[in-house]
Amino acid sequence: MEGKKSIGIQSKKEEDLSKWYEEVCLKSELVEFAKVKGFMVIRPRGYSIWEKIKENFEKIINKPLGVKNAYFPILIPESFFKKESEHAEGFTPEVAWIDKELTKDSERLAIRPTSETIMYNSYSRWIRSYKDLPLKINQWCNIVRWETKATRLFLRTREFLWQEGHNVYETDEECEKETIEIIKRYKKISEDLLGIPVLVGKKSEKEKFAGAKHTYTIEAFMPDGKALQCGTSHNLGQGFAKVFGISFLGRDEKKHFPFQNSWGLSTRLIGGVVMTHSDNSGLVLPPKVAENQLVIIPLIFKGKEKEVLKKSEEVFKSLKKFNPIMDNSEDYSPGYKFSEYELKGIPLRIEIGPRDLEKGVVTLVRRDTKEKSESKIKDLQKEVPKILERIQKDLFLKAKKRMEDSIIKVKTKEEFEEGMKNKKLIKMDWCGKTVCEEKIKDETGATTRCVTFEKKKISGNCPFCSEKAIEEMYFSRSY
Amino acid sequence: MEGKKSIGIQSKKEEDLSKWYEEVCLKSELVEFAKVKGFMVIRPRGYSIWEKIKENFEKIINKPLGVKNAYFPILIPESFFKKESEHAEGFTPEVAWIDKELTKDSERLAIRPTSETIMYNSYSRWIRSYKDLPLKINQWCNIVRWETKATRLFLRTREFLWQEGHNVYETDEECEKETIEIIKRYKKISEDLLGIPVLVGKKSEKEKFAGAKHTYTIEAFMPDGKALQCGTSHNLGQGFAKVFGISFLGRDEKKHFPFQNSWGLSTRLIGGVVMTHSDNSGLVLPPKVAENQLVIIPLIFKGKEKEVLKKSEEVFKSLKKFNPIMDNSEDYSPGYKFSEYELKGIPLRIEIGPRDLEKGVVTLVRRDTKEKSESKIKDLQKEVPKILERIQKDLFLKAKKRMEDSIIKVKTKEEFEEGMKNKKLIKMDWCGKTVCEEKIKDETGATTRCVTFEKKKISGNCPFCSEKAIEEMYFSRSY
Repeated sequence: MEGKKSIGIQSKKEEDLSKWYEEVCLKSELVEFAKVKGFMVIRPRGYSIWEKIKENFEKIINKPLGVKNAYFPILIPESFFKKESEHAEGFTPEVAWIDKELTKDSERLAIRPTSETIMYNSYSRWIRSYKDLPLKINQWCNIVRWETKATRLFLRTREFLWQEGHNVYETDEECEKETIEIIKRYKKISEDLLGIPVLVGKKSEKEKFAGAKHTYTIEAFMPDGKALQCGTSHNLGQGFAKVFGISFLGRDEKKHFPFQNSWGLSTRLIGGVVMTHSDNSGLVLPPKVAENQLVIIPLIFKGKEKEVLKKSEEVFKSLKKFNPIMDNSEDYSPGYKFSEYELKGIPLRIEIGPRDLEKGVVTLVRRDTKEKSESKIKDLQKEVPKILERIQKDLFLKAKKRMEDSIIKVKTKEEFEEGMKNKKLIKMDWCGKTVCEEKIKDETGATTRCVTFEKKKISGNCPFCSEKAIEEMYFSRSY
Repeated sequence: MEGKKSIGIQSKKEEDLSKWYEEVCLKSELVEFAKVKGFMVIRPRGYSIWEKIKENFEKIINKPLGVKNAYFPILIPESFFKKESEHAEGFTPEVAWIDKELTKDSERLAIRPTSETIMYNSYSRWIRSYKDLPLKINQWCNIVRWETKATRLFLRTREFLWQEGHNVYETDEECEKETIEIIKRYKKISEDLLGIPVLVGKKSEKEKFAGAKHTYTIEAFMPDGKALQCGTSHNLGQGFAKVFGISFLGRDEKKHFPFQNSWGLSTRLIGGVVMTHSDNSGLVLPPKVAENQLVIIPLIFKGKEKEVLKKSEEVFKSLKKFNPIMDNSEDYSPGYKFSEYELKGIPLRIEIGPRDLEKGVVTLVRRDTKEKSESKIKDLQKEVPKILERIQKDLFLKAKKRMEDSIIKVKTKEEFEEGMKNKKLIKMDWCGKTVCEEKIKDETGATTRCVTFEKKKISGNCPFCSEKAIEEMYFSRSY
């Protein structure tokens, strides 16, 4: 344990989510504020969550889809940026440029806010024939975007870590199919690993990625009634290929422009996990992303120390694969230790006391529900994975129920406004027009989240502009 | 395979190592030049070597030594830099600053050329008591140093990837012991994984890290008579702790400054691997860092296609764990394919032809020696790992012999100059003085490499300044 002992969470999740969130992030030692505004230090406990995400990502995306990792320069020449005009326009306000002193006569250099342009410049040399396709490359890197909105640990910071995948295909069909396949796999990571339930769907024209044909997204819904965009997969069509001169000799021996997508998820997900599961005692983590899945706390009473410590050591060794923490220090009371590991989000606590030992049992305490149970020591190898699995599942189901309970379908402007007041995730048949979207945002504070993949029967007119409704859109406030 | 088919290496290693090296790096598709001078794009084949290094590193350093990964901001405030004056002086010329437009009234921000200062600012908050020690944190990240010397793919670039470990200890002894332990483990990575033999030892006062008490290094020796510093481990003493205000309450309940080290190795190692093992046919990789350890090439003759392809497929499946490439395309002749995979450094080639099949055998061809052998198909599972192991070992031994053959001990200035003319790695008993070191560099072009850990009997005077010799130093040109 690094640093000073913490003193527990002072804010309440239900009263001031934003303050509570910050406190949980800081006191559970996931992260701290850097001196430079908008930047953060990801501490080992936080970084280990990112490592679990990476590991899972490589297993369910890189390997099965044949994506290779690579690394492109952090500095992007201004001329690359300017090639795709929508892209340039979308990103220019957030770009951090390098001091001109360094580059003098040559053009300005930007710290990457995303890498489409520098990657596609290379792609234009690497791709010659249909035999070079599909090309599937991903990079894990840091990104700088000079946010002007208020920043927030993990959720919106001026630097963050992410992966950005950039694939190139021979046909439009392949491209679209995999763009969707990837967003579905993002959903898997979010739900199965992190226990964060999400909507999957398509972004509106207004909210799509700068330069994309269309954007798919996974959207989580936080306890304070704000949506959190957790990952996006963009179908870029042939737009970038054309401006970057990426072309290939097709099977018909003619020159063609390929079809591209790009897709990313970031350390923002860590913020999503914290906000979704944690409580007023501190961090709650799904076991699959917890570095230490359990903590063993011997309850030491005079006269019985030796036996208790010996048995605790045995239990510790037998549960090695869960990367347990053993806290047998005498500096703090058991009660203090319980709070400490609750604060830090260790999914399962094992208490071993002298009375338990007489019966050959230990006490297990779930972090999420604080529920206690007993297990025979000899059954621990079987019991522990079962409980961890149950915690993993229950966390997801609880969050899923919360999200589902938040969804309401509205048919009028009044219902919409009522929904917003009650912090709901609103669905509504609407017109699909950008002007209407902007008006809704101005009037209600809600932004469009996505149109899900399920086939829906659409009826009536848009409650805001009275034009014909064409799709069912989700709306809410958002991070 | 991405991009256009290559046309083989035109330069000769023995004639123009520098041109040959560049050609091998580019044509084996490890890397390409970025548009911005001094930057590189690490392509998937190159990046996979870095991933193998990372994997090995985590196994032999992070896990056994209890080092945790974390992530610190890329932008460092100028005031942090200036705190340690030697450090600031050492790095300032190479720093890339952010455009002042962005930071306006506040201080200048630098892209990290190394992270001591920003990490130790955090450490000053995280460390309170001896119970918080040792603190062992590593980060994998990108680094920017605005080199003014000529850059060279992997070996000297303005951006590179590395790991930087930063540990803090209660005592000087612990700190020194682990500083050395880490450089020894770097040697293991270099030799056992990458097959690059190295000297291990201590840097001169002049060549040590800016702000360190002393620096340990691993030094490889390239075929052109230049040393390549492959990794360093710095004992920082208490210098940074004092200026960054890192202190702890000791076991004696008094305030103490802790002892620190920092240690790093980078993508430069990839360049070392390429230069050490490759030849005029292209890349040669030790099997342990080759993404694909073998390639299977069916020799297809009319009438026998089906059998050959079927058997090749079987062999391919049975050797899955070596991540084999199967090239059964009909677009290129076997001879062309052989050259292609030699260029790309696949350690082992398996040729399967109709005549072999009759005998139930295949032909194995080692990339490093081009030696052919036959193996019964049923023995492949046993034979392949044996040959790969032999290649791994032989590459190291060959490089080791080359390095050892290059070492000469000199006792006079004339012998030193003769040694430099013959591109030797020179050892000499010398005075250890910085003024003398500078003079030697000016007169001969040689820099000090290190004083190894072995106990040596030192005799006589320094051949350059005639003062009393105090240690045996290695000298050579260097990258």
